[in-house]
Amino acid sequence: MQKLQETINKIKEIDHSLAQKTQKRLDNLTKPQGSLGRLEELAKQVVEITGNVNPPTKFKVIFTLAGDHGVVKEGVSVFPQEVTPQMVYNFTGGGAGINVLARHVGAKVVVVDMGVASDLNSHPGLIIKKVNYGTKNMAEGPAMTREEAVKSIENGIEVFEEEFLNGIDIVGTGDMGIGNTTPSSAIAACITGKPAEELVGRGTGINDQALSNKIAVIKKALELNRPNPQDAIDVLSKVGGFEIGGLAGVILASASRRVPIVIDGFISGAAALIAYQLEPKIKDYLIAAHCSVEKGHKIVLEHMGLAPILNLDLRLGEGTGSALAMNIIEAGIKILTQMATFQSAGVSERTDKHSGEPVEP
Amino acid sequence: MQKLQETINKIKEIDHSLAQKTQKRLDNLTKPQGSLGRLEELAKQVVEITGNVNPPTKFKVIFTLAGDHGVVKEGVSVFPQEVTPQMVYNFTGGGAGINVLARHVGAKVVVVDMGVASDLNSHPGLIIKKVNYGTKNMAEGPAMTREEAVKSIENGIEVFEEEFLNGIDIVGTGDMGIGNTTPSSAIAACITGKPAEELVGRGTGINDQALSNKIAVIKKALELNRPNPQDAIDVLSKVGGFEIGGLAGVILASASRRVPIVIDGFISGAAALIAYQLEPKIKDYLIAAHCSVEKGHKIVLEHMGLAPILNLDLRLGEGTGSALAMNIIEAGIKILTQMATFQSAGVSERTDKHSGEPVEP
Repeated sequence: MQKLQETINKIKEIDHSLAQKTQKRLDNLTKPQGSLGRLEELAKQVVEITGNVNPPTKFKVIFTLAGDHGVVKEGVSVFPQEVTPQMVYNFTGGGAGINVLARHVGAKVVVVDMGVASDLNSHPGLIIKKVNYGTKNMAEGPAMTREEAVKSIENGIEVFEEEFLNGIDIVGTGDMGIGNTTPSSAIAACITGKPAEELVGRGTGINDQALSNKIAVIKKALELNRPNPQDAIDVLSKVGGFEIGGLAGVILASASRRVPIVIDGFISGAAALIAYQLEPKIKDYLIAAHCSVEKGHKIVLEHMGLAPILNLDLRLGEGTGSALAMNIIEAGIKILTQMATFQSAGVSERTDKHSGEPVEP
Repeated sequence: MQKLQETINKIKEIDHSLAQKTQKRLDNLTKPQGSLGRLEELAKQVVEITGNVNPPTKFKVIFTLAGDHGVVKEGVSVFPQEVTPQMVYNFTGGGAGINVLARHVGAKVVVVDMGVASDLNSHPGLIIKKVNYGTKNMAEGPAMTREEAVKSIENGIEVFEEEFLNGIDIVGTGDMGIGNTTPSSAIAACITGKPAEELVGRGTGINDQALSNKIAVIKKALELNRPNPQDAIDVLSKVGGFEIGGLAGVILASASRRVPIVIDGFISGAAALIAYQLEPKIKDYLIAAHCSVEKGHKIVLEHMGLAPILNLDLRLGEGTGSALAMNIIEAGIKILTQMATFQSAGVSERTDKHSGEPVEP
């Protein structure tokens, strides 16, 4: 618990005074004021987070954390649990969606076993931070102990801190874990207070019958375990997952180091809810990559007041949305740092057509 | 007119039979079926357009065409006309928004003077295809002659064909021309049949009074010139612009060569309307980069049945939206061509939890 508390203590309010200065600088670039919309907003946010008026973008890192879920016994996914370790090998082999998209945007993928149900072959590209061999079935009792919940977050903090030594300018979150939309839905229902029906989606592609079953399983888990929404550790331990706790740790550690965090889809959103409940200041460090097809995601983002950058009907996870959104954020930063000014390019500024005088916008 | 007619004659229906084959291939990649949403759709569309099951993405080219507009005399823009040539120099100098974003996504910018009102200094990065020194004031008569309208389209075709010799895998459109949201609004009103009030926006940033004036100018131009919506050349000549005609030419030439076209904002949208009116088959070759803040853009996209990839509140033009969207399209193509299959990665496929049998989605 000490590592977690120390990390939270290091998270500071972001420096809002930099936004106005940065907008002034943006307004002096050779374009109509505000005409690059969201790109300008993103550049300002990254300046505020980092405190750096020329934020670097060299080290883009996506943390893809894997874990298994005892609740798969309830038939909540169309894929068998063996797919979790198989996909971890796919990540280290470079053939998964996240590998393709991370290469495309120049990001590194850090793959972590947070709690896969089997022992994984060692690989230089795989970090083992296993808390346990999968969670327990939350429909029958708590998914993990309180100690395991803390450990999963602290392992996530360690993963970030170890990679931070290599340099991190911007973080993306990603997940892998067969069945993990179920604990994510339970976390979201508990923390946002919305009924399970409004939050639960089809995950990797279940049919109507399995969807009803999934909703029933989540309701049962919430009724049986009664997680306390004010106590994020309690929520994580009763209805969470090891990769979700790990991602909450990555998010908290990243904020403590003033590194912007690009939140991927629904599972990453549930992890962000845990981190947000532990320390609401993290909100300003978060950038929502996209809005997932998984219907609870919109509710999760709204709860934290986050507006997604992309709407591409994604529902893969792994950090795929983060990778694409990082690229847009990087574009915004380059606009800020690389565009010519009216003066340097010898371009005339706007003129009020009626008075002939230059005007403020 | 011969070059234009020959180009139109070369445009073929795209090969829809490839979509199903490509979806099958996408469904065999290590991800839940359809989970990469729009990326998968874009990959399929590019396969259909090019007829290439592994479409290359090496040569990404953005055509940024510049022209001036006599209608600026009516006070429709907050920027003086001298900004058009100044921005062209900014493009060739590499300091404009489009230069930054094109570098970011690995695209080349081809800068063309289609009809700037002054002579431009020669530069190895600037192509001169000047039709005339700016259009005439459409509020007083036709913007250009019918011959000039055809020439502007044919000059655009030439620009594409000359660059095609260097290799083009995907095209982005872009524009520069102080005042050019006014002719674009007039074209959109004429071709879509919507009233000017619904289409006209603030361009680079005019106030309420100037907006009312802009609407009145557009209505006057339409009433005075009575362009025939069935005759795109007539529309272009009465209320268009040289860069708009040039972009229509780039679009037609690109479709004739089976190269996908990423349409930028409102001005590019007006050019696409001209091309679409000349040859409706081009629709399947078009990909809408984004939906602009300029309110007529949404109407233009809906008229052609195009769904934008991005919604980033952009309103700069130059091809900036095209650059960002190209990057997303390239990501989709890489998903198709670089991801591992279930077989190659040794990942289990989905199983129906009730029957235990593998199922079709």
